[in-house]
Amino acid sequence: MKVTIVGATGAVGREFLKVLENRNFPVTSLTLLASEKSEGKKLQFKGEQVPVTRLSANSFGGSEIAFFSAGSQISREFAPSAVSAGAIVIDNSSAFRLEPDVPLVVPEVNPETLKNHKGIIANPNCATILLVVAVAPIHRRAGIRQIIVATYQAVSGTGYRAIEELRRQVSAIERSEPVVREVYPHQIAFNLFPHVDDFLESGYTKEEIKMTNETRKILTDESIKISATCVRVPVYRAHSEAVHLSLGKRITADEARQILKTAPGVKLLDSPDENIYPTPLTASGTYFTCVGRIREDIALENGLALWVVGDQLLKGAALNAVQVAELLIK
Amino acid sequence: MKVTIVGATGAVGREFLKVLENRNFPVTSLTLLASEKSEGKKLQFKGEQVPVTRLSANSFGGSEIAFFSAGSQISREFAPSAVSAGAIVIDNSSAFRLEPDVPLVVPEVNPETLKNHKGIIANPNCATILLVVAVAPIHRRAGIRQIIVATYQAVSGTGYRAIEELRRQVSAIERSEPVVREVYPHQIAFNLFPHVDDFLESGYTKEEIKMTNETRKILTDESIKISATCVRVPVYRAHSEAVHLSLGKRITADEARQILKTAPGVKLLDSPDENIYPTPLTASGTYFTCVGRIREDIALENGLALWVVGDQLLKGAALNAVQVAELLIK
Repeated sequence: MKVTIVGATGAVGREFLKVLENRNFPVTSLTLLASEKSEGKKLQFKGEQVPVTRLSANSFGGSEIAFFSAGSQISREFAPSAVSAGAIVIDNSSAFRLEPDVPLVVPEVNPETLKNHKGIIANPNCATILLVVAVAPIHRRAGIRQIIVATYQAVSGTGYRAIEELRRQVSAIERSEPVVREVYPHQIAFNLFPHVDDFLESGYTKEEIKMTNETRKILTDESIKISATCVRVPVYRAHSEAVHLSLGKRITADEARQILKTAPGVKLLDSPDENIYPTPLTASGTYFTCVGRIREDIALENGLALWVVGDQLLKGAALNAVQVAELLIK
Repeated sequence: MKVTIVGATGAVGREFLKVLENRNFPVTSLTLLASEKSEGKKLQFKGEQVPVTRLSANSFGGSEIAFFSAGSQISREFAPSAVSAGAIVIDNSSAFRLEPDVPLVVPEVNPETLKNHKGIIANPNCATILLVVAVAPIHRRAGIRQIIVATYQAVSGTGYRAIEELRRQVSAIERSEPVVREVYPHQIAFNLFPHVDDFLESGYTKEEIKMTNETRKILTDESIKISATCVRVPVYRAHSEAVHLSLGKRITADEARQILKTAPGVKLLDSPDENIYPTPLTASGTYFTCVGRIREDIALENGLALWVVGDQLLKGAALNAVQVAELLIK
């Protein structure tokens, strides 16, 4: 396959290279695109240095699959050019996710929606992917009615500059130097804040409403009620989620464990007596959505609580998109 | 008042000294007690160095108020001696909190329960205090039916050794040295885990069930359904909570803001458009329970969501206990 990556030098872009290589995706040619300021950089793929070129409407000639991960604006502007040039676009931005004729795909959950694509396939929001991989098998068994979720989101979700900001702030504190803020409105080192993406009129953030709307679309059930609080935490990598579900019928914690033990893409880490439950460090760099702390929720009707952690740059972004591409090839 | 502090050298113990001094509590004599290994240390109070002596059953002669903050076992063993010696015990441990004849007091919420004390008064769990200060005024107006809460708890909640562990681990990572774990079962630097206090048979932790049981006792309503996920995060000070409520009747976000604007002990920080919402850094060192991100919850019936942050060593522990003592004097 002739593969193009838009946003190749970003935090997710670089993960694309690793995932394509690691999964031995059949790449016959690789085009790396980025903004002007990254032009001339080289990134390594299968032992070779691949140059980064500047994104333009003419960048997509001959491309068969174009992975976009450079923000909504870039996707809106250039995805149509890629489709016109004959490529299938797998877009990691939120630009097209809720459009009715754009499949929003998590391969473990709704691979069947892929066949209806019209050139653009959307990769869901990172926190949403991790949530649905964990709860879709429960939904199929017992019908989810309500989801209350609080997130613990790593700085790499914001991108490279945020990783550097956390690193620099920690170093500054270590040396008793002043803390400088450039990316986030508040200090992130040894701090956290309930602010991921912009605020909406309702008081929710866009990130929180993505979790609501995208989860409903992926599970094809608009009746599920979903409320999220999304929080940025001083962790480099992997998002965590405290998930509380109300189900259509009761299932026990043991039944939930049995369901999730064999669920695709899920790694069950649920032996609290041995201090085994997912953490960002255990999930970082892995392809799994890790689930633990499964218990019957004592506040919600037919309640079930769980703790979900996954690498949001991998399963939450690059890996999911590559899995979609693998399905396309099949 | 002749004041005794048990556990004076701990993270909460030292806050007692600051709060008593800062609020000009009428201390006529001050006895600082701790374990053998702290014997001989001196702590500063109003410009004087007060020696720390070793706790024993005979330590309480002449004491009028004894603040206990040295864990449940110490409280169980020595609180009766303090009461026998004529002191009123204000206990920060979980030892007596759920005993029917022990008032569990948050002065802003249920000061009236104080008069029934029989020598021992319990200070609630830190995360619970912050929760009830924020939600009690809502409860009075609209009747809370369900609380789903996820916490973001600072390491100082575990004590001094945990503060040092985070500091050491961050320094080690900064210097590319190996990370050593002594206090927590997992690395806490740039990591987090859903594990605060021990696990129970149900899969909940003791901390989570404290939030359930103590909140019900303080709000004197056993019908409220409460489910918590308690998470330790790499923050030094101040606990945060993502709170989702279902109410007996709908109130709007604006109504909730009006209620909380004048609620005792609450500081409303809710202008998201200006990036104003509580964070651990803004709450650290203050006496307030800070509330923001107020919005109508879109998943729960008559739902309301809010974000609560407070200094768990102050309002969550020492300050609350001193406020109780102030009420006793009145």
